[in-house]
Amino acid sequence: MASELLTPLRWVDNQLLVLDQRLLPLQTQWLHCRGHAEVADAIAVMAVRGAPAIGLAGAYGLALAAREGVSLRQAARTLAAARPTAVHLQWALDALQAAVPSGEPSAVLAEAQRLHAEDAGLNLAMARHGAALLPADCRVMTHCNTGALATGGWGTALGVIRVAHATGRLREVLAGETRPWLQGARLTAWELQQEGIPFRLVADGAMAWAMHSLRPDWVIVGADRIAANGDTANKIGTYSLATLARAHGVKMMVVAPVATIDWSLEDGRGIPIEERGADELTRVQGRSVAPQGAQAWNPVFDVTPAHLIDAIVSEKGVLLGPDRVKLEAWKG
Amino acid sequence: MASELLTPLRWVDNQLLVLDQRLLPLQTQWLHCRGHAEVADAIAVMAVRGAPAIGLAGAYGLALAAREGVSLRQAARTLAAARPTAVHLQWALDALQAAVPSGEPSAVLAEAQRLHAEDAGLNLAMARHGAALLPADCRVMTHCNTGALATGGWGTALGVIRVAHATGRLREVLAGETRPWLQGARLTAWELQQEGIPFRLVADGAMAWAMHSLRPDWVIVGADRIAANGDTANKIGTYSLATLARAHGVKMMVVAPVATIDWSLEDGRGIPIEERGADELTRVQGRSVAPQGAQAWNPVFDVTPAHLIDAIVSEKGVLLGPDRVKLEAWKG
Repeated sequence: MASELLTPLRWVDNQLLVLDQRLLPLQTQWLHCRGHAEVADAIAVMAVRGAPAIGLAGAYGLALAAREGVSLRQAARTLAAARPTAVHLQWALDALQAAVPSGEPSAVLAEAQRLHAEDAGLNLAMARHGAALLPADCRVMTHCNTGALATGGWGTALGVIRVAHATGRLREVLAGETRPWLQGARLTAWELQQEGIPFRLVADGAMAWAMHSLRPDWVIVGADRIAANGDTANKIGTYSLATLARAHGVKMMVVAPVATIDWSLEDGRGIPIEERGADELTRVQGRSVAPQGAQAWNPVFDVTPAHLIDAIVSEKGVLLGPDRVKLEAWKG
Repeated sequence: MASELLTPLRWVDNQLLVLDQRLLPLQTQWLHCRGHAEVADAIAVMAVRGAPAIGLAGAYGLALAAREGVSLRQAARTLAAARPTAVHLQWALDALQAAVPSGEPSAVLAEAQRLHAEDAGLNLAMARHGAALLPADCRVMTHCNTGALATGGWGTALGVIRVAHATGRLREVLAGETRPWLQGARLTAWELQQEGIPFRLVADGAMAWAMHSLRPDWVIVGADRIAANGDTANKIGTYSLATLARAHGVKMMVVAPVATIDWSLEDGRGIPIEERGADELTRVQGRSVAPQGAQAWNPVFDVTPAHLIDAIVSEKGVLLGPDRVKLEAWKG
């Protein structure tokens, strides 16, 4: 299966190829990065997205810097500046430098490739744990994009769906289009189509009627941040699905690596929710769909309380009916 | 207040002016119809939408035909053919011919204007009944477009909101954008902006988080068809809001004329739900937002069970906790 692994990053002929996600789903175009500065550019313009994928791009950027004869410290500064708020990028840059103090080019590359394989392996472990919860011939719902495009491969929630498909237990995916950014339509639909996984796109407002009419088994989503009690911040719309799922007897699964748990947060009330501008609602792909000057309420994330989550899945396994005490088992 | 009435149809200098809703919200352009054939065209190309508004356009079309010296029967055939499935259009054409058998031009025009005023009056009656249910300083949510643009004036759910604003009890409207057609963004936002009613657009998937965070008092929607037990078919997304409202202690109001009740339907299971093509989800304003060939599940309506509806409001008054027995009072 390794040869089929969809990944947004490929090392070919001493170049880093970055799938330009800005052009998806209409064009599949790879940026050819020959030096670390080009990787920094690819990160800055958001050709690559998703915390794990950005971190890995940074690691490969250091591999290019080593070949260019640029010091890793200097290159890391350039790469980190491309997305100053990306905690995972900084972590990956630090980890690689610590692992290869010599800066020897082939050792740096080997370490970047090891980090890449490690991330894909983490995803695959989660995917297997999650897929084991699904019944035969199951219909699942997902939200946003949590796939290979955002990670080193497989993805989180979409990883579970991939394994369910590969093991023959998946009937269909209902993919919410995920306004305002339409990651479901643009990215998840593209990933599922690439791999021949049966799916239908559904408007976010139609997901409740889909639960009533099509009777899915599980909603499967990723997480941006999980509090110590299991409250989960994720893309806006997740809380809606969790509330509707409970009302319809549909189960709710959150799939995320243990690193997503913020042990310093007692519960979801401590999670800050970014609100963005009205233009993300009033314009679609550059075209106005609302009158000029229209105001909007546009939060990026919402918080799903732990009591609406039936399972949290990480590389360490599955917690059913997650709460503070059960999550403690994954600490440290 | 009559001079401020927003209406998509105006009779000026022996012409029917039709607001071209295809161009909203970016352009406010009126089609000048000098003969009944031009009205038929405006109906056929969907420059005018909403059952009551289409019916009134037909009635004014007959007024033009009378001035042209065309028989009303022949003109009615042309106008009805412009939208063969529009039951209300056929009703309006029949009603006008029955009321003015002479076909005398000024009498036909007077009858069309009477029907227009009657529809606006019906809406205003509903609006006052509904607004009386709202608390002071209230925040409401609405869905789709149920406003003056779809009717002879005022609108149904949006009529309630207009009166609430006019009587000083409205703090804010949260308008769901209403994918896939974006009537909330394109039309409701435009109407609210025209009249200076404070509002914010909200993505459909964010309405649950808005209920949690902004604590609205009521969700107020229209209806496409109401069964004899109160089950209500309305624009896709309505059932989602009703389910979420119940989970958050937010009240749910359906506003529609008694003519919307289909007494032949025992309950909502008898209401056929049209499903439309994938392109309404995979394209926005002509631009692709999903990979080519992506499938979609795209129902136009959903059905909200009566037990999730706190009030049905018609021109006859208010039914709290609507059911078959209570609705009987409005029959005949």
